Amino acid sequence: MSRKILLNSYKSSAALRLCSTLSHISTNIDSTGCAVISMNKAPVNSLNLEMLLDLKKNLNAALENKCKGVILTSDLKSVFSGGLDILEMYKPQEERLKEFWSSLQDIGLLLYGFKIPVIAAINGHSPAGGCYLSLTTDYRIMVQKYSIGLNETKLGIVAPFWFREPMINTIGYRQAELALELGTLFTTEDALKIGLVDEMVPDKATAIDNAKKKILEFSVIPKQAFQMTKLEMRRPVIEKLLNNREADLNQFVSFCTSPEVQKSLEFYLETLKKKK
Amino acid sequence: MSRKILLNSYKSSAALRLCSTLSHISTNIDSTGCAVISMNKAPVNSLNLEMLLDLKKNLNAALENKCKGVILTSDLKSVFSGGLDILEMYKPQEERLKEFWSSLQDIGLLLYGFKIPVIAAINGHSPAGGCYLSLTTDYRIMVQKYSIGLNETKLGIVAPFWFREPMINTIGYRQAELALELGTLFTTEDALKIGLVDEMVPDKATAIDNAKKKILEFSVIPKQAFQMTKLEMRRPVIEKLLNNREADLNQFVSFCTSPEVQKSLEFYLETLKKKK
Amino acid sequence: MSRKILLNSYKSSAALRLCSTLSHISTNIDSTGCAVISMNKAPVNSLNLEMLLDLKKNLNAALENKCKGVILTSDLKSVFSGGLDILEMYKPQEERLKEFWSSLQDIGLLLYGFKIPVIAAINGHSPAGGCYLSLTTDYRIMVQKYSIGLNETKLGIVAPFWFREPMINTIGYRQAELALELGTLFTTEDALKIGLVDEMVPDKATAIDNAKKKILEFSVIPKQAFQMTKLEMRRPVIEKLLNNREADLNQFVSFCTSPEVQKSLEFYLETLKKKK
Repeated sequence: MSRKILLNSYKSSAALRLCSTLSHISTNIDSTGCAVISMNKAPVNSLNLEMLLDLKKNLNAALENKCKGVILTSDLKSVFSGGLDILEMYKPQEERLKEFWSSLQDIGLLLYGFKIPVIAAINGHSPAGGCYLSLTTDYRIMVQKYSIGLNETKLGIVAPFWFREPMINTIGYRQAELALELGTLFTTEDALKIGLVDEMVPDKATAIDNAKKKILEFSVIPKQAFQMTKLEMRRPVIEKLLNNREADLNQFVSFCTSPEVQKSLEFYLETLKKKK
Repeated sequence: MSRKILLNSYKSSAALRLCSTLSHISTNIDSTGCAVISMNKAPVNSLNLEMLLDLKKNLNAALENKCKGVILTSDLKSVFSGGLDILEMYKPQEERLKEFWSSLQDIGLLLYGFKIPVIAAINGHSPAGGCYLSLTTDYRIMVQKYSIGLNETKLGIVAPFWFREPMINTIGYRQAELALELGTLFTTEDALKIGLVDEMVPDKATAIDNAKKKILEFSVIPKQAFQMTKLEMRRPVIEKLLNNREADLNQFVSFCTSPEVQKSLEFYLETLKKKK
Repeated sequence: MSRKILLNSYKSSAALRLCSTLSHISTNIDSTGCAVISMNKAPVNSLNLEMLLDLKKNLNAALENKCKGVILTSDLKSVFSGGLDILEMYKPQEERLKEFWSSLQDIGLLLYGFKIPVIAAINGHSPAGGCYLSLTTDYRIMVQKYSIGLNETKLGIVAPFWFREPMINTIGYRQAELALELGTLFTTEDALKIGLVDEMVPDKATAIDNAKKKILEFSVIPKQAFQMTKLEMRRPVIEKLLNNREADLNQFVSFCTSPEVQKSLEFYLETLKKKK
């Protein structure tokens, strides 16, 4: 009883002229109006430019379809999202690097102030940008025995303030400080203890079920009151990013292209190769 | 061994020309200098304009009497305070609506920066404005098996920033975000777990006893040091409200009189009627 | 296998012309590059001007020696640090009082933004300024059965914002508010529960061992990423102090020399004398 919207790869975007691709994200809207947005880009749902544009397209489609709420999840077996695609940052072409980061800012702004409830059904590992995606939602349900955290420092990079502040908002300043400094990845169980996720479940099916129940709980609240309350809570971070997009972009580009960071990324990529 | 001050209805206030009333709040000052301010306006101690002016009068009297501290409680059986009087907001007369909200701002400013310790002895349900009253105090003792929370969104309205920020200060950002978005009412037990109240007790007598002990604990601290520390902690919220009283008032009036909110309030009032 | 640096009393500082002294702080750097900075000024490691200058010297030496990290601890049996030396504040000479507070600001700025990890091995009581020292570090390990807290109000004084905000950052707003208002000293066990310390250990040897392990954990993180992440987290407090040093100094001097505070300090000093 569900209509499936498979959003095709887009044709006219300037960004996509650089690197066209088949869509790796699909949206299923069930009969109650819950949109399940599933990322499916093996091996780890890494967030490159196309993936970010695709995610934005799916999120906006959920709004246009007047969905009750969105469930963000993964079609992969053991990974929610591995975070930003390192290949976007390693030896980058500046134009594309800027477009990549700007699209990430778009996703952050769109999701953190999303007008309908978004629930993360975290059905696999969720480091760095994967953790960030979940931090922008209204509620996090995570399957047991995976890991989650903002582990950027371990790769020699630094999470921007709009990753950091939702992390502080979610687990408190002290836990965030320590976790960000050490690049900690938490098990689902530890994430639950410190409030990084709201629920721990045994499997993906339960995660999706509970996420749908949560959306129904949210949908009882008059829309305007929900939206204003959510926006008022999140306005400081949203406004700070809106007012500093350009500076944040330049800072990222300059930091990312520094020899020290490029060396860290090279080292990390070589480690990944050896693992294969 | 206690002098009873029954504050009579006031005679000269412009506000009261609109709607004179007998006082529903009484103050008892015991031999140790603890003032017990009791709300007694059946059925639910709803906070209308007169109630707010009366509360202000009683609070100022406690200061003038050089009391050691104040205990804020209810004379009703199962309700601390049901919060703002919906009738002040439903089909309002603009002048009175403004006076009502302005008086609520007065109470917020007075209580959040109160120069002597205030303890809430929450001996019954405490939704919305009732919860807010308790959030402005220095310590919350709640009788078991009641409910408390800022459930404004459930009525289609939005708690102002000076309700929201003390809530964030008390239970942390994440718990506050979720509770405000969903309009959650917590049981005493859950409120204790998330830190919304500081103590859970079996009955009102114990609440009052423990509140008196707490006031004695506070009164050991040199006054100036207590006042400066409290003020420094709470200055951001107090200054923000002082600097934005007019804007906050206009925003409330415009929001409250919008068709969408009036419809929500009408729906809520009809639900209440059906319950009777 | 450790080189011992005993920093001698300094000779040229203007401050020290006022009150020259042998150094009460020593630094041991072990073969792994961990610097153990030990305070040893009986009876309570009280922080007077010379002690603060000495601490600054030892901290900077650790940086110059390119240490991996610093462990801050005490050579006394049951006291980490008793905090600020009351004698600096009681019937003070204004010039020295200013130099004293300014040196404390220096230590605060240096430690809160320290470029290498600092671990507090809190091997004894740690009230007021002693607690503050530990709050500026990256990780707190405390030996059981001692006490810690910002108990300034009990002495009639008020912790400045740059003591207060790290306290809020560490244990959250509500716990900080209550603890600061009441001047609460927590047992090690309670401090662990509210997050004021990160670990509880049975003795100093274990504290030092665990601190060294923690430094190794930190040292895996690429330096630039660690430093930027730490600085970004702590920037608001650091910048606020940098931008308000003069005002903060003047406020302290005026507050400290007020009759009410002098009377509180006199009362406190007499209590101490009677205890002997």
